[in-house]
Amino acid sequence: MKMEDMILISVDDHVVEPADAFEKHAPDKYKDQMPKIVKGTQGEDLWKVEDISFPNMALNAVAGRRPEEYGMEPTSYEQLRKGTYNVQARVDDMNANGILASLNFPSVPGVCGQNLEKVKDKALAYAIVQTWNDWHILEWCGAAPGRFIPLGIVPTWDPVLAAEEVKRIAKLGCHAITFPPNPSMTGQPSIQSEKWDPLWKACADNNVNICMHIADPSGAVPSMDSPVDVFMTNMPVSLYSTASDLTFSPILRKYPDIRFSLSEGGSGWIPHFMERADFVNAHHVWTNQNFGGLKPSEVFRKHCFNCFIEDPVAVKLRDDIGIDTMMWECDYPHSDSTWPKSPELLWESMKTISAQEVNKITHLNAMRAYSFDPFLHIEKADATVGALRAKAEHVYLGYTDTSKAAGIPPSQHDGVVTFGDILQQLAGLHTVASKD
Amino acid sequence: MKMEDMILISVDDHVVEPADAFEKHAPDKYKDQMPKIVKGTQGEDLWKVEDISFPNMALNAVAGRRPEEYGMEPTSYEQLRKGTYNVQARVDDMNANGILASLNFPSVPGVCGQNLEKVKDKALAYAIVQTWNDWHILEWCGAAPGRFIPLGIVPTWDPVLAAEEVKRIAKLGCHAITFPPNPSMTGQPSIQSEKWDPLWKACADNNVNICMHIADPSGAVPSMDSPVDVFMTNMPVSLYSTASDLTFSPILRKYPDIRFSLSEGGSGWIPHFMERADFVNAHHVWTNQNFGGLKPSEVFRKHCFNCFIEDPVAVKLRDDIGIDTMMWECDYPHSDSTWPKSPELLWESMKTISAQEVNKITHLNAMRAYSFDPFLHIEKADATVGALRAKAEHVYLGYTDTSKAAGIPPSQHDGVVTFGDILQQLAGLHTVASKD
Repeated sequence: MKMEDMILISVDDHVVEPADAFEKHAPDKYKDQMPKIVKGTQGEDLWKVEDISFPNMALNAVAGRRPEEYGMEPTSYEQLRKGTYNVQARVDDMNANGILASLNFPSVPGVCGQNLEKVKDKALAYAIVQTWNDWHILEWCGAAPGRFIPLGIVPTWDPVLAAEEVKRIAKLGCHAITFPPNPSMTGQPSIQSEKWDPLWKACADNNVNICMHIADPSGAVPSMDSPVDVFMTNMPVSLYSTASDLTFSPILRKYPDIRFSLSEGGSGWIPHFMERADFVNAHHVWTNQNFGGLKPSEVFRKHCFNCFIEDPVAVKLRDDIGIDTMMWECDYPHSDSTWPKSPELLWESMKTISAQEVNKITHLNAMRAYSFDPFLHIEKADATVGALRAKAEHVYLGYTDTSKAAGIPPSQHDGVVTFGDILQQLAGLHTVASKD
Repeated sequence: MKMEDMILISVDDHVVEPADAFEKHAPDKYKDQMPKIVKGTQGEDLWKVEDISFPNMALNAVAGRRPEEYGMEPTSYEQLRKGTYNVQARVDDMNANGILASLNFPSVPGVCGQNLEKVKDKALAYAIVQTWNDWHILEWCGAAPGRFIPLGIVPTWDPVLAAEEVKRIAKLGCHAITFPPNPSMTGQPSIQSEKWDPLWKACADNNVNICMHIADPSGAVPSMDSPVDVFMTNMPVSLYSTASDLTFSPILRKYPDIRFSLSEGGSGWIPHFMERADFVNAHHVWTNQNFGGLKPSEVFRKHCFNCFIEDPVAVKLRDDIGIDTMMWECDYPHSDSTWPKSPELLWESMKTISAQEVNKITHLNAMRAYSFDPFLHIEKADATVGALRAKAEHVYLGYTDTSKAAGIPPSQHDGVVTFGDILQQLAGLHTVASKD
C-alpha cells in the first residue's frame, strides 16, 4: 500500500454554520426567532437568539491562517477560510487533503449541543435543534452524497424529547448524535442517572452512535496562569474520565447494542485506562460492581470507539486498544488540524502496519460505527487520497489574508500565553452593536 | 533472574502517625499545642490541633482488612494493622512482602502536607512541620537504617520558609519532600508562579527530589453519583495534568538539576502524554514557548520520575517512557496496595524483561532519584525478596479482626457505591466527644 491508496474518513471535523443555516427549515411559528447573525461593535459577527449572543461564531476555526495567528479567535466570516462554512468549498478542502468523508460537529449550538440549554423558551430551543438537524442532514450533508457522515444534535435538557429527535433523524438517515461527555457539567442529570434511559434506548434501537466530544476542562487547567499549551495538551485525555464513567455506569451493560465514540480524545492512553479499570474492578470488591464475569475493559471495548489525529503510540498499541475500535480524525478547521498535510503525517505511522489494519483505522471502522457507506455514491477508485487530490489542483492552499478583515485584531503576546489570557480575550467579544 | 532475586524499593507507601509522633521533637514553646489524639463521640480517634480536628487519622489505611471492608475508613488505632503506625511491625510487614525499602507519605499533615495550611497560628504550623520531619527522619526512618527513604514535608504556605526547611532536612540526610501537584487548589500560588523559586532553588541545590503525589480530584469525579470505581480508576492519571503543567512551566528549564517524582500516577499513559506535548509544541507556535531546540518530552524525561503498582502496558512501553525514569510502588497500607503479594504480581511483568531492566525499575532508579543507598547498611544478599521473606515467617498475614473495634461500624451498601456515598461517610466523622 502507498500513501496515495489510503481511503480517509475523518470522524471529527467541525462546521461553522453559514448565516442562512436557520432559514429554510425553520417552522413558520419560530421563523422570526431563529438564531441570526448581527454585527458587534468591532465589526465582528455574532449569533443572536432571544437576548443571548454567541460571540464565538467560529471558535478556534483557524484552518488556513498563519500559525502565528492560531490563538486569535476568528470573529467574522471575512476572517474564515470559506471551507469552514461553505459546503462546496469544504468539499474542495477535503479533496485537497485527500479526505473522502467527514463527520462535522456543530459550532453555534456548541460542540455537544449544550449551548441551546441557555435558550429560555424551550419550545423555541427544540425548534432550533430540529432546524439545525434538518439543515445539517439535508443541506450540508445532502449537498455532497457520500462525503459527509450526518451528525445530529439533541435537546440536552430533555431526555424524552432527545429520544424523539433521535428517532426522527434516524429516519432521515442520521446515525450519530453529539452528546456532552459530562451533562452534569451544565446542571443536567449525570450519565449515571436513569433519566437518560429513553435516550440511550432510542440510540440503541435505532443504531445511532453517541459521540462524546472533548468539552469538559475540569482536570485540564491546573490554574489560570498555566500556559495554554497545558490546556491543549490535557484536553484529549479528559475523555479518560468519560470512558471510566461510561464503563462503570449501567448503560453499557443495560443496552447491548449501544455504541459510543470518544471524539478528539486520542487513543494512546486507552490501554492504560483499560488495565487500570480492570485492576480497580479486580481489587475493590466492596464497590458492588457486577460485570457478569467480564472485565470492564471487555465491556468498554465492545461499546466504545476512539479516534486520533496523530498518535504513533496508539498505532503501536493497536492490539491492546482493539484494532476494530480505532478511527482517524483531521479536526478541520480547528487549530489541532493537520490539514492540508494529513495524509503525509498519518502515513508515517500507517506505513508500519498491514493494509488491512490501515483500512480499518482509516475508513472501515468509521463506516461500521456510523452505519455509513460512501461507496453507494462513489467508486472506491475515486475515493483514495491520490484520486481526490488529483481533482483539487485549483484549490488555494496559501494563508488566508486576515489582515484587513473585520473583527478584533490579533493581539500580540510578548510572553508565554496563559489559559487566563485566552479567557480574557474571549470575554472581550461580547458586545452587540446594532439593535438586532 | 527469579522472582526471589528481585530487590524491591517501594517509592509510594504511607505512614499513619502514632499517637506520640509529636511529643519527643516538639519545641518547648509549642509542646502543649502540638497535634494530639482525642476520642470522638463514636469511639473514633481524631487528631486535634487548635480548634481543628482531623477525623481521618488513617484515611484509607486498610491493609490487612477483609476486601469487603475496604471502603470503610479506619477511625481508630484498634482498627488498624499495627504495621501502619508501628515501625517494627512495619518492617515485619515489609519483610513479609519481600520489600527492602520504602518511602512513606504522611497522613495527619495530608499526603502533600497541605492540611497544615488550616492551622491559624503560622508559627505553630511551622513548628508542627519541623516536629513531623524530625520524628519521621530520626525516629521512623532512624529505627531501621537502610529500610526507609526519608520524605520531608514543607510549609506549603510560605516558599521562603519551605526553602529553609529543605536545607535543614537535607543536612539530616533527607533528599525528598512531598509537595502538592497543584498548590493553587488550596489557594496558594500555582506552580507557574515565581514565588516558588526559592523552594525550587533549594531543592535543586540540595539534591532534594520533589514528590507530587496524586491529590487533585478535579477531573477524576464527573459527578457525585459516579461510582467510586470511576474516581479510583481516574486518580492516577490526574498527574497527566501535573506532568503537563511542569513541562510547560519555566521550572524544568530554569533549574537544570531539579528532579520531580509523579507519585501514584502510574506510568502507562506517559508515552501518550509525551507525544501529545510534543505535538502541541510543534503545532502551536503562537504560544511563545521556547524549549531551546529540545522537545518538551526530552525536558520532561530528564527531570521527572514516575512509578507504578501494576502496569504491564508501561513495562511494554519502557523504551518510550525511558527505562531510567521508572520506579515501582506498593502503596501500603492503602486500598490499591498489592501487599502481601507484591512480588508475585510484579513478577508477571518483570519476567518478560532483562535483569538489568528489572533492577532499574525495582531499585536502582529509586536509589538515584532519592540519593538513597540501602547497601551501606544491608548486604545485597540479605536484601532480596527471598532473603527478606525468610525472616518473616512469624508475621501474621490473615485478616485483621475489626468487628469489635471502636469507631464507625462498616456501613452496608446494597447497591453500587458512589463517590457521593464516600463523601457522606467521611463527613460523618467529625464530632469531637471529649473536651480535648
